[in-house]
Amino acid sequence: MDFDTIAAISTPMGEGAIAIVRLSGEEAVKIADRVFKSPSKKTLTETASHTIHYGHLVDPKTGRTVEEVMLSLMRGPKTFTREDVVEINCHGGLVSVNRVLQLVLNEGARLAEPGEFTKRAFLNGRIDLSQAEAVMDLIRAKTDKAMHVALNQMEGRLSKLIRQLRQEILETLAHIEVNIDYPEYDDVEEMTHRVLLEKAAFVQKEIEKLLRTSEQGKILREGLSTVIIGRPNVGKSSLLNALVQENKAIVTDIPGTTRDVIEEYVNVRGVPLRLVDTAGIRETEDIVERIGVERSRQVLKEADLILLVLNYSDQLTAEDEKLFEATAGMDVIVIVNKTDLPQQINMERVKELTEGKQLVTTSLLEEKGIDELEEAIASLFFSGAIESGDMTYVSNSRHIALLNQSLSSITDAIENTQSGTPIDIIQIDLTRTWELLGEIIGESVHESLIDQLFSQFCLGK
Amino acid sequence: MDFDTIAAISTPMGEGAIAIVRLSGEEAVKIADRVFKSPSKKTLTETASHTIHYGHLVDPKTGRTVEEVMLSLMRGPKTFTREDVVEINCHGGLVSVNRVLQLVLNEGARLAEPGEFTKRAFLNGRIDLSQAEAVMDLIRAKTDKAMHVALNQMEGRLSKLIRQLRQEILETLAHIEVNIDYPEYDDVEEMTHRVLLEKAAFVQKEIEKLLRTSEQGKILREGLSTVIIGRPNVGKSSLLNALVQENKAIVTDIPGTTRDVIEEYVNVRGVPLRLVDTAGIRETEDIVERIGVERSRQVLKEADLILLVLNYSDQLTAEDEKLFEATAGMDVIVIVNKTDLPQQINMERVKELTEGKQLVTTSLLEEKGIDELEEAIASLFFSGAIESGDMTYVSNSRHIALLNQSLSSITDAIENTQSGTPIDIIQIDLTRTWELLGEIIGESVHESLIDQLFSQFCLGK
Repeated sequence: MDFDTIAAISTPMGEGAIAIVRLSGEEAVKIADRVFKSPSKKTLTETASHTIHYGHLVDPKTGRTVEEVMLSLMRGPKTFTREDVVEINCHGGLVSVNRVLQLVLNEGARLAEPGEFTKRAFLNGRIDLSQAEAVMDLIRAKTDKAMHVALNQMEGRLSKLIRQLRQEILETLAHIEVNIDYPEYDDVEEMTHRVLLEKAAFVQKEIEKLLRTSEQGKILREGLSTVIIGRPNVGKSSLLNALVQENKAIVTDIPGTTRDVIEEYVNVRGVPLRLVDTAGIRETEDIVERIGVERSRQVLKEADLILLVLNYSDQLTAEDEKLFEATAGMDVIVIVNKTDLPQQINMERVKELTEGKQLVTTSLLEEKGIDELEEAIASLFFSGAIESGDMTYVSNSRHIALLNQSLSSITDAIENTQSGTPIDIIQIDLTRTWELLGEIIGESVHESLIDQLFSQFCLGK
Repeated sequence: MDFDTIAAISTPMGEGAIAIVRLSGEEAVKIADRVFKSPSKKTLTETASHTIHYGHLVDPKTGRTVEEVMLSLMRGPKTFTREDVVEINCHGGLVSVNRVLQLVLNEGARLAEPGEFTKRAFLNGRIDLSQAEAVMDLIRAKTDKAMHVALNQMEGRLSKLIRQLRQEILETLAHIEVNIDYPEYDDVEEMTHRVLLEKAAFVQKEIEKLLRTSEQGKILREGLSTVIIGRPNVGKSSLLNALVQENKAIVTDIPGTTRDVIEEYVNVRGVPLRLVDTAGIRETEDIVERIGVERSRQVLKEADLILLVLNYSDQLTAEDEKLFEATAGMDVIVIVNKTDLPQQINMERVKELTEGKQLVTTSLLEEKGIDELEEAIASLFFSGAIESGDMTYVSNSRHIALLNQSLSSITDAIENTQSGTPIDIIQIDLTRTWELLGEIIGESVHESLIDQLFSQFCLGK
């Protein structure tokens, strides 16, 4: 396909050593040639692909030097978009990179919309829709494991599975067609039903398998919204600090990486906890006081994980009991803190209240019990499966929704087959399943959906 | 020189389309080879310089794919550091880029200190110290003009001027030596004095010329710290909004660039105003109330520019008069706002109070007078000179301090010559001037100073 030439800043905004302005499209090289002056005087048009060049950007209107740059020339189709791509690496200041962008826009490039480079990679057939979505997941990944999920998806693992299922359905549909065309045999109907049931059951089982990964996949992708509650002075802040300190930022622990950007996330054994912001936690004093109030219940209700902290060296109070009531039916881990002090709490009663939930005793002061707590968190959400590493997780809400719909239409097909519904109705169910699965990888999707999906991307990607 | 191999993230932290991990040093290519797998199976060691390669990073310890990347191979000396440089372009997420960095660190690279790449460019003789400093100025530039100043400096304009002056001094010193060695001629002393005075006067004049650019240079580089004061309800917030809206962010006006990062800066006709933070401006209510208080005076004293707002539709009050008192002797522009309402203010008295200062009347509501205000701001700090464009500005405090010291020692030399001081004393003055100028471009500087200078750089540059 032929598109106009787009340009955008592809590095995050801020002060850094290097920033990149990326151009993609038929005119990319021509536009770059109009502004780029290399000491060798050679034009880019006469230069080999996938090469790097030092030079200056000069504004053709004023003749003034705009920037000193390194320019990467990559001709399609071996590029991110499959089009000609030029990447201009300039000094990473806000003014610098904006001037470079402005210059190429003045020379005829159009400012790219968010996600437009990836959209072109999709429209030009280099990647399918689920791979394109994985690109964004990869950028937004908060833990190593989340990144693995995205990377696998980007490399096409999910797509491959989806394609296999669609192929199965297609073959089944073909089989039905053949049988309809040659109805002279006696056992046609029986055979058709048998094949159909077998294939449909297989597809159903595979979709269910994928959906079983989705809960964990979503957690890996989005993190667990976590709230710490407890009476004043039971050690809520200490718990927060312990979790943050033990697990530092979510990213690999390298000095100089800006922690503040992401410090609301902590990575507990691969489980990303999105701690309700510090301010919020400081405010849990209020939550406890107003535990009957609707808003407080709402905060709890929206949490994926609640850490309920009790004081080992104090008697259980009515307030504590209210916290158990308020969190009934939720994912709660009960933490009895301050085991370094003499026991006052009635542990029998605590165990009664805790019921089937996990119970951990800690002395945050003496740094005891934190391992056990982390173990409890990890085991609550990942029953070993996460350790196996290279599974294909479904993590994207859109995919999950489509899989659920596919599951219900393949289940319809099975039930209709069993109840002896006419074959053409079953054909409709199967076709619908095939289409729904296709939407995951971007086959049979509306243009408006595509536009909307890519608009959620970041600029320059 | 041979250094170990360093690595760092060279793009700003945050979510973006592309992030770069840069490696520099003797082992850069070897380390990259250990982790980079291209579909062609060719190693980087056997690959031509200044080329770009698609491939995957694979952790040699686990055999697992870490990222999908584009790798730029640039062998020294035609690189930023003059060493072998490998740039790994990966997906711009925090996890992704940190994993890539971690991988190359595991394989033997050392995490670079802030500014260490530029420091190597300096130590390897590619750029001098003032050029290196300009790299950072360029990244931090807040306006086009600030960027031009930095770009000129980076390209070596200031260095060239400094070298010329040092050459003049060296020739003068040589001249003196020759005369000392051949003292048989009668007029030697007279000749020496004549040459010396002429040359020293030239150097003095040139240093003075450079220093004259420094005030504007510093403003261009650092921005004018600006405070808006006035009684409640005179239109301070409207003024702030008008300045911000009219001039948007300091960067070129392109949609999608994050304004919040820099929104405290506005660019008024090339003059960067660093508006005392919004919170601060909201607090000026207090400043006015507590105008006698020491802290408030301090805020005003530290400002480079004060915008004093009066209400056209109200009588002058004692408070207003106090504001004039408090800002006596400072750079003040008086703004009489609300000319859309009936006049109540005594303009005669306002003019008396304003004296030699600039006076602008505005109706911010009707968007009148804003041009005049901007004109007043620009003319207050740049009397036309800025328009000429390609001047060499001195903008760096370290350079300004060294130029001031050079000026005083060259002035000593002149005065000593005139008062008939022995030649060897004058030689000392000249040598001192030569050394001081040398420090600007990094000749004759202490290692500790160099370390300290580069440590102010951002990571990855």
